[in-house]
Amino acid sequence: MVELSVGQLHPSLDDPVLHSMNLLNDIAADHPRAVSFAAGRPYEEFFRVEQLHEYLETFFAHLTEVVGLTDKEARRTVFQYGRTKGVIHDLVARYLEIDEAITVDPDSVVVTVGSQEAMFLTLRSLRASPRDVVLAVAPTYFGLTGAARLLDMPVLPVGDADGGLDLADLERQVAAARARGQRPRALYLVPDFSNPTGVSLDQATRIALLDLAAELDLLIIEDNPYGLFQADPGTRPSTLKALDTRHQVVHIGSFAKTGLPGARVGFVVADQPVTRDGRPAGTLADQLSLIKSNVTLNTSPVAQAVVGGKLLRHGCSMVAANKREIEVYRANLRRVLAGLTWRFAATGPVTWNTPAGGFFVVLTVPFTVDDRSLRRSARDHGVIWTPLHHFHTGMTSSHQIRLSFSLLDNAAIDEGLDRLAAFVRAEIQAAPGRST
Amino acid sequence: MVELSVGQLHPSLDDPVLHSMNLLNDIAADHPRAVSFAAGRPYEEFFRVEQLHEYLETFFAHLTEVVGLTDKEARRTVFQYGRTKGVIHDLVARYLEIDEAITVDPDSVVVTVGSQEAMFLTLRSLRASPRDVVLAVAPTYFGLTGAARLLDMPVLPVGDADGGLDLADLERQVAAARARGQRPRALYLVPDFSNPTGVSLDQATRIALLDLAAELDLLIIEDNPYGLFQADPGTRPSTLKALDTRHQVVHIGSFAKTGLPGARVGFVVADQPVTRDGRPAGTLADQLSLIKSNVTLNTSPVAQAVVGGKLLRHGCSMVAANKREIEVYRANLRRVLAGLTWRFAATGPVTWNTPAGGFFVVLTVPFTVDDRSLRRSARDHGVIWTPLHHFHTGMTSSHQIRLSFSLLDNAAIDEGLDRLAAFVRAEIQAAPGRST
Repeated sequence: MVELSVGQLHPSLDDPVLHSMNLLNDIAADHPRAVSFAAGRPYEEFFRVEQLHEYLETFFAHLTEVVGLTDKEARRTVFQYGRTKGVIHDLVARYLEIDEAITVDPDSVVVTVGSQEAMFLTLRSLRASPRDVVLAVAPTYFGLTGAARLLDMPVLPVGDADGGLDLADLERQVAAARARGQRPRALYLVPDFSNPTGVSLDQATRIALLDLAAELDLLIIEDNPYGLFQADPGTRPSTLKALDTRHQVVHIGSFAKTGLPGARVGFVVADQPVTRDGRPAGTLADQLSLIKSNVTLNTSPVAQAVVGGKLLRHGCSMVAANKREIEVYRANLRRVLAGLTWRFAATGPVTWNTPAGGFFVVLTVPFTVDDRSLRRSARDHGVIWTPLHHFHTGMTSSHQIRLSFSLLDNAAIDEGLDRLAAFVRAEIQAAPGRST
Repeated sequence: MVELSVGQLHPSLDDPVLHSMNLLNDIAADHPRAVSFAAGRPYEEFFRVEQLHEYLETFFAHLTEVVGLTDKEARRTVFQYGRTKGVIHDLVARYLEIDEAITVDPDSVVVTVGSQEAMFLTLRSLRASPRDVVLAVAPTYFGLTGAARLLDMPVLPVGDADGGLDLADLERQVAAARARGQRPRALYLVPDFSNPTGVSLDQATRIALLDLAAELDLLIIEDNPYGLFQADPGTRPSTLKALDTRHQVVHIGSFAKTGLPGARVGFVVADQPVTRDGRPAGTLADQLSLIKSNVTLNTSPVAQAVVGGKLLRHGCSMVAANKREIEVYRANLRRVLAGLTWRFAATGPVTWNTPAGGFFVVLTVPFTVDDRSLRRSARDHGVIWTPLHHFHTGMTSSHQIRLSFSLLDNAAIDEGLDRLAAFVRAEIQAAPGRST
């Protein structure tokens, strides 16, 4: 009888990073009636089954009426195996132009199975030898760390200097890595409404980062799932890719938040020129496509058709497509911030940040937060959230809590914050020594 | 300005294996009017756009009426992020029971982005250290070899003894690998209507393989994309998984041929018990799920709903769902075999095998076949096919040609075989020295 031990399997399977998501899901599953500030999912009240049919119809009509395919060719495009780099790459490029002022050749876009596959392909391409490492602004989304673990690729944390980016630390970390014989390939970050902190880089830091990365000979992996969810009207800083005149930025996007998560469609823009034996050999996108053909072969053309249809119905603008959702996120962010003020103004040294959009707020509390605290919060107070140590590799606790508000209505926010306040009071009382 | 050389990227990107698919696609694209015996795609004439709508409706009705979800829960299942191991795992298990007499716990099924991701996840789990290698019956589907290359995992070829499996060679290769300090983890094969040879293992060889693998402490990775396409009524040998009483077999399946390729839905059954520190820790499927959550997160629930709906409309039998297609494949196989006899009976030593089903026939010719031969065939004779050396790593030529007949109608088969005969005659005349 075959029996395997974890020790006989890839070491990543014993790494806490790979277990974070499961552990958090387990706690959520054990407390189905808790109010959840945990899930980073898009608002779902506007989803309708008919939308799937409409999106598919719209995409087929586009293929026959605009692209000029015959009926048979259109069916082949959606039903059969497809182009490895995707079948909605042109629509993705239009969307980037319209919503993000990013101008790219559609041929440098690879449509992926969510942004997770985009991260995985990018890291696979850059991990050429055991010397290659990636840097990441910490706290770091654990999907990036997990992908790196699967590739045995070290992730070196770079300080976030209170939610921004510590450029001096970036320089130090690169120098230290090189002194150790490592080859830093890229810096990963979420410049807009970061997961987990919700914070955005200002325009000056973005420009300084591009200059420093050029000096350091470092690619930038810009992950942008939340960029369109700006709470307040006004100028949002440009994405790094929009500012990129030197092909420094690999831009990863997702339609999980703006399209629908169930399509699992994301993309990566990788317009870096590649040479082979000194001769031009396409772009990094072509190399990612080669890797993709051996990981997932294609991104489901059916799923791409659904997202393509949604794009087409809104003039390729996901801002337009998400008008109602953006209102919800904006209102929820305001309600959470106001609710925190109301409840914690008198509760000792509890603080939080004030993101300009996105899905997340980070609360800092005067006691240690670990997975046991989360279990207590779920069991005794009926509210769950995400301990921030899961975004710091190697840490098992911190003093911070991520609150996600994208999925909630007003009543849930109010009730959830009441429960959270009760939890915080109980923890402070239980650990008075720490409450200073 | 950033510029990358291939030498700075993962070494697999310089490996011919990763370029096979592209090279073959390029030749096909250069000759759009050639008759193609190259594409291993399912028959597409029965695809209808309405089917997508019907399948989705059927799946939603199943969720609400049979599973008992509320409307909101059903929408959440399809629109939101989903369970990492999939949302149609129970339907997959029913399908395996009905069509393949394989009985498995649905919880040991991981729904994947096609069988490609299933291969990738399985190899990732088994490549624990640089010692770990996988064996594969040669010629080998290049998706397996490509996935292994991405993981720096050597693939050791095992002889196929004229289309079967050379068990003595398997034993030799395992012993030789161990003598070199390697740790052979698994043997990969396609026991039914193999890609590329079309050949199937007989029942006795299957049973002997299971016994030998147990002796050798080797897992078996059974890839089964074509198993349902039996040409002649009668008893098909059991899948290895159906015969597996010792959890030796990791069974990989695909709905790309039986469902629709554009859904990109496959699966892996991995019911091997796993221990951690000597204590039970679920199954290998749970470990593959952990890996998957860092590669693609989920398989698109929308795409799964489409495949789930197709299964449900046919009582979870893909044999029933593919009644018309199976007729086409059967008729095409007969027509190709008869056409080869008709055209090559008098053309010197040209031989071919006689598969009992599937998509492929292999032709052996008395001249060297390489990618240049394929270009000549395409340019001068208007017919394309797949040189078999692409399925043998390290080889750049062979004397064999894979003919795929799944996508063709009678006229194309007849015209294509005429052109193929002209190509073969021309090659024999051009290289008389080799024609013996």
